[in-house]
Amino acid sequence: MWTLRSQAAIVGIGNTTFYKAGQSGRSALDLALDAILRACEDAGLTPTEIDGFVTYGTESTHPYTLAQTLGINDIQFMDRYVGGGESLAATIHHAAMAIYAGVAQTIVSYRSLSGRLVRANRDITDNGGSRRSFLAPFGAFVPVHYFAMQARRHMIDYGTTSRQFGSYAVVLNDNAQRNPNAIHHGRPITIEDHQASPMISSPYRLYDCTQEADGACAVIVTSAQRGRDLRHDPAYLLGAAEGNGPADQLYTQFRHQGRFNTAGMEEVADTLYARAGIGPGDIDVAQVFETFTGQGLMALEDFGFCKRGEGGPFVESGAISWPRGSLPINTAGGGLAEAYIHGFNNLVEGVRQMRGSSTSQVDGAQTCLITSGPSAMPSSALILHR
Amino acid sequence: MWTLRSQAAIVGIGNTTFYKAGQSGRSALDLALDAILRACEDAGLTPTEIDGFVTYGTESTHPYTLAQTLGINDIQFMDRYVGGGESLAATIHHAAMAIYAGVAQTIVSYRSLSGRLVRANRDITDNGGSRRSFLAPFGAFVPVHYFAMQARRHMIDYGTTSRQFGSYAVVLNDNAQRNPNAIHHGRPITIEDHQASPMISSPYRLYDCTQEADGACAVIVTSAQRGRDLRHDPAYLLGAAEGNGPADQLYTQFRHQGRFNTAGMEEVADTLYARAGIGPGDIDVAQVFETFTGQGLMALEDFGFCKRGEGGPFVESGAISWPRGSLPINTAGGGLAEAYIHGFNNLVEGVRQMRGSSTSQVDGAQTCLITSGPSAMPSSALILHR
Repeated sequence: MWTLRSQAAIVGIGNTTFYKAGQSGRSALDLALDAILRACEDAGLTPTEIDGFVTYGTESTHPYTLAQTLGINDIQFMDRYVGGGESLAATIHHAAMAIYAGVAQTIVSYRSLSGRLVRANRDITDNGGSRRSFLAPFGAFVPVHYFAMQARRHMIDYGTTSRQFGSYAVVLNDNAQRNPNAIHHGRPITIEDHQASPMISSPYRLYDCTQEADGACAVIVTSAQRGRDLRHDPAYLLGAAEGNGPADQLYTQFRHQGRFNTAGMEEVADTLYARAGIGPGDIDVAQVFETFTGQGLMALEDFGFCKRGEGGPFVESGAISWPRGSLPINTAGGGLAEAYIHGFNNLVEGVRQMRGSSTSQVDGAQTCLITSGPSAMPSSALILHR
Repeated sequence: MWTLRSQAAIVGIGNTTFYKAGQSGRSALDLALDAILRACEDAGLTPTEIDGFVTYGTESTHPYTLAQTLGINDIQFMDRYVGGGESLAATIHHAAMAIYAGVAQTIVSYRSLSGRLVRANRDITDNGGSRRSFLAPFGAFVPVHYFAMQARRHMIDYGTTSRQFGSYAVVLNDNAQRNPNAIHHGRPITIEDHQASPMISSPYRLYDCTQEADGACAVIVTSAQRGRDLRHDPAYLLGAAEGNGPADQLYTQFRHQGRFNTAGMEEVADTLYARAGIGPGDIDVAQVFETFTGQGLMALEDFGFCKRGEGGPFVESGAISWPRGSLPINTAGGGLAEAYIHGFNNLVEGVRQMRGSSTSQVDGAQTCLITSGPSAMPSSALILHR
């Protein structure tokens, strides 16, 4: 019996300026500290009140370096989720566990990226012990190669079109025009722009791909009770789930044709809704970790916003558009148009929606779904409520 | 208010054969699976009942690779503690949080090492971004260089002698003679052997140093309630603490002279005892993560078994010897004489003491302290009880 419903809350949010990858001239440590200090200020807390840190398994900064640099002398909880983009919601889930058990009171979750592309490229040759050794000989070097094959499968199985993927990108870029911090702010795109953009890995074109970025985000998690006394209305954690689903999902899910056309999040979605006590019809706004357009579209199916295979028409219908769609998504621009901080900027935006302070605010939004990296095992997701 | 007292239990233990580092001819993955399968068999559970994994931040195998290889299709919890040897007790602490929150039911914690020395040596040059860059120019390349300076400080401040460090090593090697799985089994040492062993980094000689090893260990954690129905008497988690203490403790604590002569665990000890509701006088047996003899000796001071600066005479008096000492420690031989599985073999031995099945069983032992890596931030510790 999951006992964490509405026990924890996000009470502070912070993010740096977002830069194109490698363009910031700032270290990941500098960016992380910047985001954390902003989150503390947002919450009305001093950094020395922090007594816990949680981040991604692939985060390059060390939480204890941050603690030392911030002058924090009493740490009660340190944690890394297992993985990359799949970690986003799970870091909040773990913070909630620690708070519920009385281990810590004020936990920072954060993610910082600087110069990531350089490291990713090195991984092609340097990650010899991993399963990538079995993919590289066939020309699959980086995520877009793996994920593009899933998109192609969805097209074959369900008739999904490149223009439908493009309509997903157009919505997110439209949202970015209202968000001055988005990398694509001031650079709207049309569906024709998408169709004319260079092919990266068929069927994915440039505008199907997330914006690799330098930047950092942080949030502060505390108990729901304490959150009520702080500066902003808390965003409460209604539900969270992580890691479940059939084992064979880390990129290599395409070995199982039956699952090749999904984002691999169905089991996480089922667990999440059961724990939250609500269903997809109760979600007012969603922040979807897309990686690439097709994975975002498939995640919408996995989380039950449309039927399997109907993601293309659903997206093209305007359902995900702000302000009139039935489910506005990625209201700050998401990974495609705001920045790709491994999904963490989506969480920050989700909290803004619960506060009513988004630049693409969904009127009266009471609940926000936030998903982590698709097609990755073990992924995670959470639901916030006001 | 920490709510985890006696809520979780260790119900299965497993370890591989231990090999001298680089001598196993087995991958870390192979070793980890071996240990986990043994732990499952010990608990009377099938591997597919596992629904959570937790390990060290520096563990080279991926928990999801283990899940896939074991055929586990429903994972609810994945976790890495932040760090290396300091992670041991914290992994159990995190498992207990997840169990208490109803997130998962049957969590494996594990650690696997193969060919570690090779990687450690690479770190000397490859870890350029870290604080090691500030140590290497002064000739401090690897842990023995840092830790030896702490031992020297203790000698200067308190008159501790190399023979006292040696008496710690002799006790552990004596325990190893009763443990057929210890790397030093069949190779007892005397204090004269210690004094004649090669100098590695003054004042540390060869026999002051842990036994770098290939091998793996695993334990299975579940709820105290469920544990009572399984094959063995559970070892209950009475208390756990992690991460706290002044920030400046990752090797570089020697910048603060006032703390140079400790293992840096005082705050963890205080928190641990408060949570467990007992004190050092209530501990029947201890498994101490020593790294090097002096750090084990200093940890005994930090955890209150003798006064500050009296660790040398305490150890030399026979207090830590089995069977007649007041506090037998590292009853399987510990990192010095059984194997250095980053401390995890100490946890397995602690569970054996609670079951009454150690080869150096402490009669009537009801409680066992288990400490993680000393002089590292953020470290951790726990107390088991029958």
